[in-house]
Amino acid sequence: MATAQKLPHLINGVAVDALFATVNAIKATPSMAKFRFRISNRWEQAAQNRSTVHTFHGAGQQLWHSKPFVLEADEPTVLLGKDAAASPVEHLLHALASCLTTSMVYQAAARGIYLEEVESSLEGDIDLHGFLDLNPKVRKRFEGIRINFKIKAEVPETQLAEIVQWGTGHSPVFDSLTNGVPVTVKAERL
Amino acid sequence: MATAQKLPHLINGVAVDALFATVNAIKATPSMAKFRFRISNRWEQAAQNRSTVHTFHGAGQQLWHSKPFVLEADEPTVLLGKDAAASPVEHLLHALASCLTTSMVYQAAARGIYLEEVESSLEGDIDLHGFLDLNPKVRKRFEGIRINFKIKAEVPETQLAEIVQWGTGHSPVFDSLTNGVPVTVKAERL
Repeated sequence: MATAQKLPHLINGVAVDALFATVNAIKATPSMAKFRFRISNRWEQAAQNRSTVHTFHGAGQQLWHSKPFVLEADEPTVLLGKDAAASPVEHLLHALASCLTTSMVYQAAARGIYLEEVESSLEGDIDLHGFLDLNPKVRKRFEGIRINFKIKAEVPETQLAEIVQWGTGHSPVFDSLTNGVPVTVKAERL
Repeated sequence: MATAQKLPHLINGVAVDALFATVNAIKATPSMAKFRFRISNRWEQAAQNRSTVHTFHGAGQQLWHSKPFVLEADEPTVLLGKDAAASPVEHLLHALASCLTTSMVYQAAARGIYLEEVESSLEGDIDLHGFLDLNPKVRKRFEGIRINFKIKAEVPETQLAEIVQWGTGHSPVFDSLTNGVPVTVKAERL
């Protein structure tokens, strides 16, 4: 994050003064930087399940979203679902796109760079030989994900790549997905 | 995946006969197993952006969801958003929960195991010293994610953990997130 400068109140819709106030608050009280995000999920039937997002911890306190957000999941009919919602792997692509976009928008704002439009298209390949245990050499995961950003901004050609690197260099989802995260799983009887 | 057995048409809402028909179709024509999932995302303002999910490739053809699904993202006000939707990292937790749940439900169905209820709660920690470049030793990503499944099923105690392992052992999102995925990013001018 750049050092505080004389910047307008809002850049890219981001309250830059509040952003630098956050930086200063964390410098004064490092524990303010600790965030804990939570969801709860409930199975409905077959591939249909839904998550509820409501509380989280951050800035030294328990916090609540303005309302509970409900996120649904299903599979398309070719994968034996009812096709009532996006599939889990598509939600993963959304998490990645949205985190990269927000990261670059915030980081650009902190540097006084105005963005006019940001679009991205993402695609990723999965070989069902993995999920179906038909070939032990085929992984279950995405083999790879390709992202193409289109950016409208009054910046030199060379800065376009830099703007995207502000995204990839700061996005929690990008870092999680490209480098992996330790996940612990427990089970108990309901 | 277990070998074909004499099983009812539907277990856990999953058409088990269609599942084994899929396995046989892929054994006959391995390219049927290649899937490509896609989303497109558009920035709105600050932390608000939305993805559209419509087409994908699979089973040897271009396919469409029943309708375009729109997935929104925002940040809570403490992170300078408008709190109009779940945040990208919460979407990531949803992707993980939904993929694990669907994977265990399908794998249980293929083994003739009936599940009555499946719930999960997930939490993950992020230290903003990373995103804000305040400490180069702090990663941007989730430090760790903890998942607690609660399962209602008429199975012995020892099988509860096995059911969850069918999820973690087959879920594309779990494999992607725990082991990492190669992601390539390009940028062009809009």
